Amino acid sequence: MKLVTYRASVEAAAKLGVMDGDLVVDVAHLGTMMGEDLPDSMLALIDAGRPGLAMLKACLEGAEGDYATGVATDLANVTLLAPIPRPRKNIFGIGLNYVEHVAESAASLDTSKDLPKQPVIFSKPPTTVIGPGDAIEHNAKITQQLDWEVELAVIIGTTARRVSREAALNHVFGYSVMIDISARDNRRAGQWIFSKGQDTYAPFGPCIITADDMPDPQILDLWLTVNGVEKQRSNTRHMLFNVATLIADISSGITLEPGDIIASGTPEGVGAGRTPQEWLWPGDVVIATVEGIGTIRHPVINTTPD
Amino acid sequence: MKLVTYRASVEAAAKLGVMDGDLVVDVAHLGTMMGEDLPDSMLALIDAGRPGLAMLKACLEGAEGDYATGVATDLANVTLLAPIPRPRKNIFGIGLNYVEHVAESAASLDTSKDLPKQPVIFSKPPTTVIGPGDAIEHNAKITQQLDWEVELAVIIGTTARRVSREAALNHVFGYSVMIDISARDNRRAGQWIFSKGQDTYAPFGPCIITADDMPDPQILDLWLTVNGVEKQRSNTRHMLFNVATLIADISSGITLEPGDIIASGTPEGVGAGRTPQEWLWPGDVVIATVEGIGTIRHPVINTTPD
Repeated sequence: MKLVTYRASVEAAAKLGVMDGDLVVDVAHLGTMMGEDLPDSMLALIDAGRPGLAMLKACLEGAEGDYATGVATDLANVTLLAPIPRPRKNIFGIGLNYVEHVAESAASLDTSKDLPKQPVIFSKPPTTVIGPGDAIEHNAKITQQLDWEVELAVIIGTTARRVSREAALNHVFGYSVMIDISARDNRRAGQWIFSKGQDTYAPFGPCIITADDMPDPQILDLWLTVNGVEKQRSNTRHMLFNVATLIADISSGITLEPGDIIASGTPEGVGAGRTPQEWLWPGDVVIATVEGIGTIRHPVINTTPD
Repeated sequence: MKLVTYRASVEAAAKLGVMDGDLVVDVAHLGTMMGEDLPDSMLALIDAGRPGLAMLKACLEGAEGDYATGVATDLANVTLLAPIPRPRKNIFGIGLNYVEHVAESAASLDTSKDLPKQPVIFSKPPTTVIGPGDAIEHNAKITQQLDWEVELAVIIGTTARRVSREAALNHVFGYSVMIDISARDNRRAGQWIFSKGQDTYAPFGPCIITADDMPDPQILDLWLTVNGVEKQRSNTRHMLFNVATLIADISSGITLEPGDIIASGTPEGVGAGRTPQEWLWPGDVVIATVEGIGTIRHPVINTTPD
């Protein structure tokens, strides 16, 4: 199942929806139609756990595609938002998690050429999140080295404290696409939060595919283009630490909670690693895809203060 | 004004309170007594902005210390929680922000001996927060180098995006005390979130003093003891980047929001910097104080899994 957060019109409140072909089904409205109390936001659905998801599925099956007026809308007529427009804590980002990206980073940035022995974790504040189509801000007073990174995003479904690798994927609600935007010239004594944590630096969407429809997250092609030219293409099987390992590792010390997001790292092909180096500038358009999930498209705009 | 979050009994809901001598005044209940709708949590009060704080003050002044039954409780009979028990994003931590701590860190850890040219920012997830008296977890399978850091915590009151140093303190709601606990052996390719972001690693309290009662945050003694022995003593005037500079700097790229917390860095005297090095172990008691705000006391307990 593919879940979205959307607005039916500019003024409308954000709603939780299910993608059904070219339609978006309004989950709360579907609940009313079926006489059930269904969640009205992605976080509420995640918090409702497996019973909540089972109830939603039962309602969808019960409706058999025959929706009352107003329950389903053409996808083309809605505005998609980030699936979780406002995370309840910073996004967990993973650095240096694809082997060839470790090599290009060591050649171009200040990182080690050795493969990390444990996941390299950083964070991006909730204020980084933007939804499909939203603009990435370029502030020339702060950066001349704005870079792209396509990533598989993992959404946690149930609390995970000290979980084993074997049990880790049971804690996943679903998967999405995120671009981890970085201002490479803002790394600051090695800490990456200012480089990767600025407003609009986490394009996120277009949907969350539930874990039951994505039994193996380690077989997915992912790619990214800038102005139509392919810059990154790889497959999640090349992750150094796979999703299960990331969850087990983080949860060994940091309890993961429903709604938490892990951006699982990017493959080779970032701007910093190219010869000559390439950066994002106002007017550019970045498009990122993870196979089986979807595509997000983001323009870069100038927000340099006077 | 000193504001607290507290429980009147073990089963009771968390409430917002004002310290009035040896009493805690239940803010929502005070509102009922005075015929005003006052906030019932710290975040709700912060979100209510200056008008909310003005209304609370007017109610307190109107009551003239003559509280209806149940409005005021002896401080000794309540349990204080962290002033913001659940922040809405990760805490912003500042590394290497006192000159002599930069030197001791360079001598004992992997940091540079040069003073940072810009604030070194990291983050601590909301799951790090514990309230006064709560235990700091020691997991011997993860760390043999658990360390202490007393810090002045800054609570943001109003949204700050690209604010000047001159205007920065206008965005402060108040100040508190935080201990930035670190597992020094978990620094992971330089990124500090796993080292500093584990569960219980942010003891926080006992209160928030509002900014109007703390016009100059750069003149405060702060100190920390372990098992009664003083380990850190300094003054916030020794910060490399003062509070106004930190807010201006972070907000140049990352919008600060009401309820955000900045842990402004620690002075010299941490365990890593001592000869020989000293670490926290189960059974230890850490006590931290910032002048004019208050004191928090935290035992260390063993939570090593079997």
